[in-house]
Amino acid sequence: MKIRILITLLTILTTMISRAEDGYRLWLRYDKIDNAQKLTTYNQSIKGWMLLENSPTLSAAQEELQLGLKGLLGKDVTPVKEIKTDGIILLGKTTVPMLSKLDAVTKANLNEEGFLIFTTLINKKKVTVITGKGDVGVLYGVFHYLKLLQTQQDIGNLKIESSPKVKVRLLNHWDNLDRTVERGYAGFSIWDWHKLPDYIDPRYKDYARANASIGINGATLTNVNANALILTPHYLEKVKALADIFRPYGVRVYLTARFSAPIEIGGLKTADPLNAEVRQWWKDKTKEIYKYVPDFGGFLVKANSEGQPGPQNYERNHADGANVLAEAVEPFGGIVMWRAFVYDNNVPDDRHKQAYNEFKPLDGTFKPNVLVQVKNGAIDFQPREPFHPLFGAMPKTPIMMEFQITQEYLGFATHLVYLSTMFKECLDSDTYAKGKGSTVSKVIDGTLDNHSLTGMAGVANIGNDRNWCGHPFGQANWYSFGRLAWDHELTSEQIADEWIRMTFTNDAATINSIKSIMMTSHETTVNYMTPMGLHHIMGVNHHYGPGPWVNKGRPDWTSVYYHRADSLGVGFDRTATGSNAVGQYFPPVEKMFSSLEQCPEKFLLWFHHVNWNYKTKSGKPLWDALCYKYSDGVDSVRWMQKTWNALESKVDSDRFNHIKMLLSIQEKEAVLWRNSCLLYFQTFSKLPIPAELEKPEHNLEYYENLSFPYAPGIRPRW
Amino acid sequence: MKIRILITLLTILTTMISRAEDGYRLWLRYDKIDNAQKLTTYNQSIKGWMLLENSPTLSAAQEELQLGLKGLLGKDVTPVKEIKTDGIILLGKTTVPMLSKLDAVTKANLNEEGFLIFTTLINKKKVTVITGKGDVGVLYGVFHYLKLLQTQQDIGNLKIESSPKVKVRLLNHWDNLDRTVERGYAGFSIWDWHKLPDYIDPRYKDYARANASIGINGATLTNVNANALILTPHYLEKVKALADIFRPYGVRVYLTARFSAPIEIGGLKTADPLNAEVRQWWKDKTKEIYKYVPDFGGFLVKANSEGQPGPQNYERNHADGANVLAEAVEPFGGIVMWRAFVYDNNVPDDRHKQAYNEFKPLDGTFKPNVLVQVKNGAIDFQPREPFHPLFGAMPKTPIMMEFQITQEYLGFATHLVYLSTMFKECLDSDTYAKGKGSTVSKVIDGTLDNHSLTGMAGVANIGNDRNWCGHPFGQANWYSFGRLAWDHELTSEQIADEWIRMTFTNDAATINSIKSIMMTSHETTVNYMTPMGLHHIMGVNHHYGPGPWVNKGRPDWTSVYYHRADSLGVGFDRTATGSNAVGQYFPPVEKMFSSLEQCPEKFLLWFHHVNWNYKTKSGKPLWDALCYKYSDGVDSVRWMQKTWNALESKVDSDRFNHIKMLLSIQEKEAVLWRNSCLLYFQTFSKLPIPAELEKPEHNLEYYENLSFPYAPGIRPRW
Repeated sequence: MKIRILITLLTILTTMISRAEDGYRLWLRYDKIDNAQKLTTYNQSIKGWMLLENSPTLSAAQEELQLGLKGLLGKDVTPVKEIKTDGIILLGKTTVPMLSKLDAVTKANLNEEGFLIFTTLINKKKVTVITGKGDVGVLYGVFHYLKLLQTQQDIGNLKIESSPKVKVRLLNHWDNLDRTVERGYAGFSIWDWHKLPDYIDPRYKDYARANASIGINGATLTNVNANALILTPHYLEKVKALADIFRPYGVRVYLTARFSAPIEIGGLKTADPLNAEVRQWWKDKTKEIYKYVPDFGGFLVKANSEGQPGPQNYERNHADGANVLAEAVEPFGGIVMWRAFVYDNNVPDDRHKQAYNEFKPLDGTFKPNVLVQVKNGAIDFQPREPFHPLFGAMPKTPIMMEFQITQEYLGFATHLVYLSTMFKECLDSDTYAKGKGSTVSKVIDGTLDNHSLTGMAGVANIGNDRNWCGHPFGQANWYSFGRLAWDHELTSEQIADEWIRMTFTNDAATINSIKSIMMTSHETTVNYMTPMGLHHIMGVNHHYGPGPWVNKGRPDWTSVYYHRADSLGVGFDRTATGSNAVGQYFPPVEKMFSSLEQCPEKFLLWFHHVNWNYKTKSGKPLWDALCYKYSDGVDSVRWMQKTWNALESKVDSDRFNHIKMLLSIQEKEAVLWRNSCLLYFQTFSKLPIPAELEKPEHNLEYYENLSFPYAPGIRPRW
Repeated sequence: MKIRILITLLTILTTMISRAEDGYRLWLRYDKIDNAQKLTTYNQSIKGWMLLENSPTLSAAQEELQLGLKGLLGKDVTPVKEIKTDGIILLGKTTVPMLSKLDAVTKANLNEEGFLIFTTLINKKKVTVITGKGDVGVLYGVFHYLKLLQTQQDIGNLKIESSPKVKVRLLNHWDNLDRTVERGYAGFSIWDWHKLPDYIDPRYKDYARANASIGINGATLTNVNANALILTPHYLEKVKALADIFRPYGVRVYLTARFSAPIEIGGLKTADPLNAEVRQWWKDKTKEIYKYVPDFGGFLVKANSEGQPGPQNYERNHADGANVLAEAVEPFGGIVMWRAFVYDNNVPDDRHKQAYNEFKPLDGTFKPNVLVQVKNGAIDFQPREPFHPLFGAMPKTPIMMEFQITQEYLGFATHLVYLSTMFKECLDSDTYAKGKGSTVSKVIDGTLDNHSLTGMAGVANIGNDRNWCGHPFGQANWYSFGRLAWDHELTSEQIADEWIRMTFTNDAATINSIKSIMMTSHETTVNYMTPMGLHHIMGVNHHYGPGPWVNKGRPDWTSVYYHRADSLGVGFDRTATGSNAVGQYFPPVEKMFSSLEQCPEKFLLWFHHVNWNYKTKSGKPLWDALCYKYSDGVDSVRWMQKTWNALESKVDSDRFNHIKMLLSIQEKEAVLWRNSCLLYFQTFSKLPIPAELEKPEHNLEYYENLSFPYAPGIRPRW
């Protein structure tokens, strides 16, 4: 007994000494379970495992199970050849003879990627079965099973069935071939193109593991502002190397297709999608890609937007453009994701309306393997946006969600902002497309309009920073994106809870503290950046920090275009008296947003130009309400700091200090936002900041003159 | 006893499990000593330590000692208050009362940064004293002492005295403010400017530790192609944060000064160094810098070279330019390092001659706190260059060495090339400036011309790759640069030996294998890239891969300018019949290089245009000799692969595989070099490749058409 204690102590000690808590392991830490009672129970009930068939994916599942159990239980759990004792874990598809006839299996209603975990008796021994219709289901099941241990759940009598609600669950990397990442804030690209395909960074496999653990089944490797060279053999060899590593983990590779590639790398004179040579070129190119990557997922395309080439260059429409690619990938089972994020250089209309205006008339004209990929809101990943009016508006077309995980407009990688609540706010929104209950999530998961091809994409926040996402809490956003893509019915609390348990601790009080920070963090950030429906008032080009004064250049890239502050009030009138963007929503939504009284105050200035003295729901006039919102934002960051600081003894010092330093940046920048915006809007309202609120330290000129030319995430401008 | 074995086993096991061998720890691994006998001896003779006085640097020394001993001995060695037993390590400067009267101390001949380690009796107890005249000497002594343990040396009766031979031992980082690194191949900059000064990456401290461990005492943080913004308060705050972390480790911060900064950030109309306002601006700016960084080291300047602004823009000379900065830093003890790497856009003369022509006449006109920083060779860090003719040619001016650690022309970070032998080849070269024995090293260490201000700079190969240098063996180049800057009399074998022991193993056979790879690697690389004095025949702009055919653009940026191949022969005639660059060397050297017979064959084509049929020393005609050299290069890489593969069981699998993959890239690229160069030169020689040699797989056109637009290390070209 004395020996055992000593061994345990020493093991723990050694582990503590030797490993810096640098966040590399994400939520797949597999540290030994610190609850002695749980550990004993688990050790008693897990005695071995058995792989019932073979495949690369099942090997990966087995390897993960072994790694996880070794870490969590602190012992090697070994494979067995027969079921002679209780406590054996069985891994195999539902079709293997040992499992196929079991009640739990025959009654299950799994889709191709779903999994089933259940406890049963085989040969009168108690076993745990982890199975799925496909190999990848078994892998997903293993990750889920390990999560049960990581989060210290009861595993005595399991019966868990889970299938993803959405088919294509994808990360979009905006990574360039020179390893810069557009809107990337966690260092540079993890794809080391120069050394591929010969040098395989161990990180590639860990990337695939992390994705598989949350059900992400694809990755677009390259920027939507695309470079045609990725489609040349020199790069396809490198893509193949990545695809080979990802494959066992069920992660398929997708590429961005530059619409003008037939000209740039194909030597053609046109990229007109209706030109026969162009069509043939895409067919040949696609065939070539499939030679390198037999399970290539397909193309993601940004066309005729922000300077990218597209079918409109040839007076064709978006469906013409999408369909030429769709016909090329169709024989191989590939798909095309065509982005609806388009708006015209000539600013003919409220940018809010342009995607809808262009795409709605095309409903029904896309080939069946085309998904139209729509951002959550109609402008561009603002801190808060109402849902995009295209959701529900194209019933004959599969509409795919595009969320942004990287925090382009939300403080880059230095602000703690838990995005799950923002994702959910959009997914839970009711479009009323087919009456009440026609939520965005039902559009996305295909149930509203009976689509079987469904998808959700997240613009990745991953870079070569050691901890992947720059901010340790940025990992929670990658995590929650994956979890919601699998099951949008999960609550943000549930997701936060499991992430905290796997990432930090199972201590209830600490979980609650961290969760309280996470759950309020998005609202807090909106408050100090763009409260009450303000939007697009950030620094120009890099999008770092406040820039409500930006008034030069292309109108719809300025701030004044969006906030429209004047002596009377502030806000963008998108009702019938203004741009009438509200007219793009279904009537009940249109009515709500149109009404000054019924419009949720969080979207007030998004849809209305409101008088500075307008009496808000709190009873305060608009100007005062705005001042309080900005101040609340700053105060809430300070509360986050206090709450975090109280956890010093509960979290390892590496991550405690890391987050503490980042919170101090967040506090500074929250103050910067508050001061800049209030001083700027005050030049219109001519009203005082309420006496009890903290006043800006500097004058407006000071803030206007701050300059951040090398803020990360933009294309270097040489 | 059984308990102890179990504990030991478990400890080792746990350590093995928990730590990926990713190279982050460099040569400061401090793993438990694997030689049981040595470990016992060390444990018996190390019982505690005592810090005799306090300072931030001594705290760092103490912390390192504790960390090192804990790892190496596998136990906590704790501080003691009195010397009651044998085996106490004493840390303090030579001036502390307990040490100042000791024989070993009074007899020592240390300089300000030197250290002394000796065994003696105090209170009749055997102690080990680690001391120095300055705090940093003690720190250097601690690192040396730990190295004795890491390399498993005898520590029973120590008497080690060591002082650095050169005063300024500096890394030059060519890092840009957007984190790209010019000629950087290990990811991107480790300076995360955006998050500084608030977020302090733990890596900054580890960087300082690594530098201190090899005696590097300064770092220029920014690119010589400088950005004036680094001198603005926004960035100086960030520089200060780094300087504060580096200070205890004796690493001073230097910055690159953009010569036109008075205009760009000062609002002046000129940057004329003789203009009074400009002079005052630099004085004020310098004073401001010293407020942020009281021990700021000074400025590094690239002026009037490759498009950089400089004094010649105002018809002033380099001394005028250097002196205005020198007078600004002089009151604070700062220095100016003025680069001699200059050549004219108009290509008026052999580029080889231009630095000498411009700088030699200025000898004696620089202020005493100016160092002229000269690259090892006269062209530009080619795989092999003869020493620069400026060494020895400016006796009244301190000449500082600039080596390139990053492998701009030596395969980036994927080729295993141990650079110590190349550094030594230059340092050991005899300039004959004051007769035989006037080696470059004597110019650099100040002994030849009696300079007390001396320096050696290395262009860093460090980036945010997990293992710092991209290639695990790249670490050896950082290491050897530091070691040679401290003591240029060390042999490359010695340095390799200690680096291998600290980085890989103390196993004699393995050390020999690895050492054999390292010691031949530079010659091997020269052979497959630029044998027999060929130079500057690489790919244009990015400098990746072979490009002997490059013939467009600025003449002295083409390859044909340098190799001058024609139907008669190949090589650049730099004798009296040609550019007469040889005339810049002292007579005995001039004579040697001028003579076709006496010129070392490794520099043959550097100095001579040689007939294809010229009979080389081997008896082979030049063309055949060239073919054999290129082929030898490839064969030697294959030998390196074999030698490495035989070490599979001797090296951890992480690093074994990493290096194995990189060697396969090196082999591919060696073949690429050989094939490209032989096919290209064959178009002039019209001679066959000797029958017994491997033939190129493709034709010349194939190689000429290969394109690598995103090879790393160049400024992205958007």
